[in-house]
Formats: sequence, C-alpha cells, structure tokens
Amino acid sequence: MSFLYKADPARGAQWAHLFAQKSPDMPFHIWPNIGDAAAIRYLAAWQPPEDPTRTLPNLEVIFSVGAGVDQFDLSGVPAHIPVVRMIEPGIVEGMVEYVTQAVLTIHRDLFDYALQQQQQTWQALPVQPASSRRIGVLGLGVLGTAVLERLRLFGFPCAGWSRSGASIEGVDCYAGTDSLDAFLARSDILICLLPLTTATRGLLDRSLFSKLPRGAALVQTGRGPHLNQEDLLAALASGQLGSAILDVTDPEPLPAAHPLWSHPRVRITPHIASATRPDSAVDVILDNLRRHREGLPMIGQIDRTRGY
Amino acid sequence: MSFLYKADPARGAQWAHLFAQKSPDMPFHIWPNIGDAAAIRYLAAWQPPEDPTRTLPNLEVIFSVGAGVDQFDLSGVPAHIPVVRMIEPGIVEGMVEYVTQAVLTIHRDLFDYALQQQQQTWQALPVQPASSRRIGVLGLGVLGTAVLERLRLFGFPCAGWSRSGASIEGVDCYAGTDSLDAFLARSDILICLLPLTTATRGLLDRSLFSKLPRGAALVQTGRGPHLNQEDLLAALASGQLGSAILDVTDPEPLPAAHPLWSHPRVRITPHIASATRPDSAVDVILDNLRRHREGLPMIGQIDRTRGY
Repeated sequence: MSFLYKADPARGAQWAHLFAQKSPDMPFHIWPNIGDAAAIRYLAAWQPPEDPTRTLPNLEVIFSVGAGVDQFDLSGVPAHIPVVRMIEPGIVEGMVEYVTQAVLTIHRDLFDYALQQQQQTWQALPVQPASSRRIGVLGLGVLGTAVLERLRLFGFPCAGWSRSGASIEGVDCYAGTDSLDAFLARSDILICLLPLTTATRGLLDRSLFSKLPRGAALVQTGRGPHLNQEDLLAALASGQLGSAILDVTDPEPLPAAHPLWSHPRVRITPHIASATRPDSAVDVILDNLRRHREGLPMIGQIDRTRGY
Repeated sequence: MSFLYKADPARGAQWAHLFAQKSPDMPFHIWPNIGDAAAIRYLAAWQPPEDPTRTLPNLEVIFSVGAGVDQFDLSGVPAHIPVVRMIEPGIVEGMVEYVTQAVLTIHRDLFDYALQQQQQTWQALPVQPASSRRIGVLGLGVLGTAVLERLRLFGFPCAGWSRSGASIEGVDCYAGTDSLDAFLARSDILICLLPLTTATRGLLDRSLFSKLPRGAALVQTGRGPHLNQEDLLAALASGQLGSAILDVTDPEPLPAAHPLWSHPRVRITPHIASATRPDSAVDVILDNLRRHREGLPMIGQIDRTRGY
C-alpha cells in the first residue's frame, strides 16, 4: 500500500521528507519512479496520468495538490474513486494576503501613485474612506469566506455571491444566477474566487463588466479561463474598468508581448497568490487518509456532478 | 467665543459646514478672515500664526489638524495653553490600510514581480510563510498599536519598541534605548511610527540599518527627518536593506531628480498614508471642547516636556 506524488519534483522531495517523518510506514514514490504500480493506492497530483486506473490498477483516492481540480481530466477517472481538492491553511493564508494587498492597492490609489513616482510628481489625491468602497467576492468557498472575513475588518462594505448561497457574518450574501446583477451593481472592487466549471468559464466578460459601477476594479484570483482577456482590455480602454490585478491568465505563462503585460492599469503575478505548503498539505492528506480508512468523508472531496 | 481654522482652505470649508451643523452656536472662521481676534478662544492649525498669543490674545487651546505636533514651533506657545494633537478614527484607519498594504507588498515579493512584469517574465519565486516574516514597529502610540493589532492577524511574528514601554496582546513589546538593538536584530520589516522629537530625529540611519537582519525592509510612515536618506540609498546599494516604502521625505515634496524617485527598490507616496477626515476630526474636536469646558483632560493633549 503506497503513495504516489506526481507534480513539481522539488516540492515532491519536501513531501517525501515529511511523509518519512510523519507516516514512516507508508512507502512514498515520486513520478515517474512509481515502484510497484499495483501497490499504489493513493495519488497526489497536479495532473494525474492518462487513464489512471489502467496505470494504477488499485488506485483508491486521487488528491489534487492545488485548491481546484479544474486541471484534471475527470472523464478518465471512474466514479467510484474519490477526488479530493486541497484545502489547507497555507493556501488560505496566501490567498488572504494576496487579495488584501490587491484590494488595498486599488483602494489607496497606488496605481496612480506609481505613475506619479515615475513622473517624479508629488501630488496627494482625495482620500476615499473604506466605508465607501464596496467589495464583492465571487465564490464563497473556504477561500472566498476567509478573504471576506479579513477585508471586513478594514471597514469595507462586503458582499459575496455564490451559486448555492452562504451565510457569513457581516457580509451580504447573494445566491444564484438571478441575484448576480444586483451583486455586481454594488461591487466597486470585484474579486474572482470561483471554481472553474462549464458554468463559470468566460464569466468575466464584457457583459459582466457592463453591470459593475463605472470605474470598478477587478482582482482575478480564480483561474485564467474565467476571464475574457480581450474584453478586459476593451473595458479598461473605455474606462468601464479602472484597473485589474491578475494572478492567473490564459494561457499561462502569459505570452511575451501580450498587451496585458505593459498595460499601466494592470498588475500581473505568475499564479503565486496562494501555494500549497508542503508541511500543512501533508498533514491534511494524512488526516484525509485516516478519514478514508475509517469511512468518514474526506475534507475537500468534490461532488463529481458539480465538478467542484 | 469663536473657533479659528488655519490649514488647507478646501478642507476648512468642509470643517465650516460640519461646525454649522454640529455646533451652530460656535462662530467658525477660516484664516486669514479671523473676524474679532479677541473673540477667538480655539485654534485648529497645521501651522499656528507666529507669536499666537499676541495675534489671538484670548486663545485657550491649540489643536493640530495632524497626528503630530512636530510642525509646530512650540517655543512661542505659552505653557498654560494646552496643545492637542489629532487622534481620530480616520487617521488610524488610513494608517492601518497603508502599512498593511506596504507590509504585504514586501512580504509577497511584489517589488520583484513588478520588475518581472516590466520584463514580461513569468517566474514564480519561493513563498515565505507569514510565520517566518518578523514585523517590528517603532512607536507604540495609537497608530503603532492599531497597525500591530491588524498585522498580527496575518500570522506575522510581531514586535514593537517604544521609549516608555507598552503592552499589546500577542506582540513582543520592547522598552527603552537599551532594548533597541535586540528589537532591530529580529525585525525583517521595520515600520517607523515614531513622533518626531530631538531624540528621534535622524534615528533611521546607517548605524540603525546595520543592526537589522541583512536584506530587511523599511516602511517609513513617521516624519521625513527621522530618516537619513543618503544612508538609506547606501544601505539599498550594499544590500543591507532590500527595499523601502516611504510616505514621508525630507524635504517634502521630494525634489525632482532626487535618486529615491527612480530607485527600483523604493516606493514613494506623497504623505498620504493617513489623513485627518473632516467629519470624524470635527467630532473629536467638539468632544475635546466639551472636555475642556468640564475641566477634563483632552484626548491627544501633549506633554510639553516630551514634545508628544
């Protein structure tokens, strides 16, 4: 009964070290050195091998090493094999840091001050209090909830939207497609933390932008294909959007010479908002393995019919 | 019995409007249209007039419109006249926003990612958890305390230093000159929120930088003359400091062509971290006037022997 890791090998070495300490009885292999394929019961992967149950005939669970499973081709995964996404404190902490930084950058006019610094101009701009800057988060899972709970402390009026609804203290929660327009109309800074599904692919497009207050800002921390990048450039050009902070693009890496790279109202980071931290990730996986043995539901196990 | 305002006239008009609403019996004048000089009992100023008690013979209280009084020449102010600095929620909220943004910018390597964006390079850098990034705040007044209480929530190990000591839950508080070196030695990100006094002028110099961990960062939200700007440039050049975010300079505005403007590891904003907000400032002043009439100590009244 062994464990197979198939993702970034440098991180894999850290995982191997942690498994040796914390679960010394579990043989741990790093792809492509899988040892006895028939012995592998558990797989942690960014991308599973093609046709995983043929390669790994006794596979019992597939773990994603990321917060989402959209990068998995689930069509090749038999329905009886649980698929578990990564929910661990390191991912949550990183996302709260990144989005807080992005929101405060927009709120405190730091796009404008960066341009002024380039021009060596010392000119204070009017200050807008947090109470007049409305935050809207698309997606109310673990990440969206944690982000809203932190931003609320700054005094921003906070709202969130999700397909199925949620309840977060001090946050106006909107549920379902019918409420999306009302949510957008009150969001000065829109943050995307949705899962990528067929329903959310391309959601951040011209039509959605037109429903935001004029001059609104976008923080894109979902997945690249949520966003229509041409529509974003058009919305920035027309002034419908005032600025955008993107941690994900489509494709990744963003190609050289893409106009987003050099846009003065766009900040780009290379998909670093939140990264699985080996120490806490291994703890979460070992806890889930115990749950699986005991017949309990695993933390982060996805609903195959919803895709998240 | 009237009130005189002597600072930015655009804000003065907002103050006049708020006084008319909230204290309609108090005549309100904006410098230089002071009306009957003998009727003026209260002055709110960024810079009081020279020889204030000759100009305003019945002056009872001087309020600063800013968080500090270092811009006042107190030598001309008789000792029996209370001098009150501005402590109001708008100033505190603004400073917490600014410093949080600055700390997260440094913590999440956004200086490096901004340079990578200029070069159209998509390259993730190793993530450092908040638990390994040690924050140190110089100055534990209302602002320093509020900043530490917010930063603590991100999981940063937090410490503060002040001359006279303080106690803040979850924060290692250092007191007095003898403990300064130990405080500096454990501060990866140093934040200056000190008052400007003869003891703190020029404190941020080569000697202080040499006691920080190599590659530390500076967030300068005190007053321009705290910092030796030549020493800062030298520390950045040697790598002793990794980056600096400056909201104050000496002089202000920072002169055109000053090398700090174009330094790739320096961010400059024009003294906007925190601004007195007319609505909350007027509330605080009216409350202090009531306290003064009732013989109570005013909030923010300075100790003339300490200068803050």
